[in-house]
Amino acid sequence: MNVDKLSYREIRQGRRFMIRVLPGTRLVDELLQFARVVDLHHAAIVSAVGSVRAVEFSDIQAGARLPITGPRMPVHRIEGPLDLLGLEGNLVPNETGKVDAHLHIFAAKSSGEAVGGHLIDAEVFATCEIILSEYIVEGVERQHSTRGGVDTLFFEDQ
Amino acid sequence: MNVDKLSYREIRQGRRFMIRVLPGTRLVDELLQFARVVDLHHAAIVSAVGSVRAVEFSDIQAGARLPITGPRMPVHRIEGPLDLLGLEGNLVPNETGKVDAHLHIFAAKSSGEAVGGHLIDAEVFATCEIILSEYIVEGVERQHSTRGGVDTLFFEDQ
Amino acid sequence: MNVDKLSYREIRQGRRFMIRVLPGTRLVDELLQFARVVDLHHAAIVSAVGSVRAVEFSDIQAGARLPITGPRMPVHRIEGPLDLLGLEGNLVPNETGKVDAHLHIFAAKSSGEAVGGHLIDAEVFATCEIILSEYIVEGVERQHSTRGGVDTLFFEDQ
Repeated sequence: MNVDKLSYREIRQGRRFMIRVLPGTRLVDELLQFARVVDLHHAAIVSAVGSVRAVEFSDIQAGARLPITGPRMPVHRIEGPLDLLGLEGNLVPNETGKVDAHLHIFAAKSSGEAVGGHLIDAEVFATCEIILSEYIVEGVERQHSTRGGVDTLFFEDQ
Repeated sequence: MNVDKLSYREIRQGRRFMIRVLPGTRLVDELLQFARVVDLHHAAIVSAVGSVRAVEFSDIQAGARLPITGPRMPVHRIEGPLDLLGLEGNLVPNETGKVDAHLHIFAAKSSGEAVGGHLIDAEVFATCEIILSEYIVEGVERQHSTRGGVDTLFFEDQ
Repeated sequence: MNVDKLSYREIRQGRRFMIRVLPGTRLVDELLQFARVVDLHHAAIVSAVGSVRAVEFSDIQAGARLPITGPRMPVHRIEGPLDLLGLEGNLVPNETGKVDAHLHIFAAKSSGEAVGGHLIDAEVFATCEIILSEYIVEGVERQHSTRGGVDTLFFEDQ
């Protein structure tokens, strides 16, 4: 594979969880707490629906260049509640071994218009139903990419 | 696990299905009919793309409080056709054992703008390609949440 | 099953891949190249997050009728960068056996507004993290649907 363009690792399926998060709960905090309790290291969201409020997410300023920096990532805070259309992303440990979430949210306003971005955190409104899939893999960590300016997946040489 | 904030159940992988739904078909009705025919009880949408028309979905009024009630969930009807960006959600039996769909739709208008919400139903326009994943689990039902005002997952004590 | 409305095939799980695509890479081209290198025939995107620029996607003109034709599918090009909220769709071989991608993108502008459509191609901006799931199945191809006017899944008689 052309390592200038793409890196990959084959991963094995671990456990699968069906989760309901209760009203008033901070979603990202609670998912990270869940990962600690069930000793989960690598995982991805298969499905997440429900509703959220006090949603904070960041986007990227039009015209921004690499490496991206904080001031080029405007933060939006929407009081809501919003319909949670989905979450997409993964849980992967960082260099210290602590599990870190990289989640993007997409959600709808009362008008039906969809908004979204890199999820900072959100509070569950009426309910949140999640299917989470664990993956078994060695040597995959989240590290800072100097070129991109963001934290992303790194694959240790095998 | 802090049961005030999150409940969960480990689930086992069942069958996987690749599905094409034909033009003119009511999507939610047909998925529920499919679940009956193949005797499917718990499942989640992994992937759904295509196009839809006569789309009905509901959202949540800004500022709404719990428990949420019908008048706080405005219904949108869009004639379309819309590009179907995805469906996210699950099939789970209700208290009578009948399989019930909780699906959120996200779709794009001609302008590229995305809209979405809790899917009531939609008609397939040109095609709809779905990957559906069955899960094997006991004691998970959709019941009404008095606190949230919506139907959501309940996990029977084990 | 009512073959007028829905066709399906049970599929078996194959390999799973965790992928990082590097800045400046054309996403669809690279995924198809990846499929060739690892000899992957049928697959679906489980999760994709990151950021993209020079995004091209098509939508469907409001009021369009079947069979849909090119002039009824306006193409949007957004310079971005955009936050990549997700990709949804599948890789399936066409009639010549060449793997073909049917992917829909949803992404957010600096303002938080979400846009999307049928992905033509996009360039990875800071990073792109993908979970890809291979499926093992015989007799499923992408062919042109005369009725719909689009290429979609066809299931060979068994």
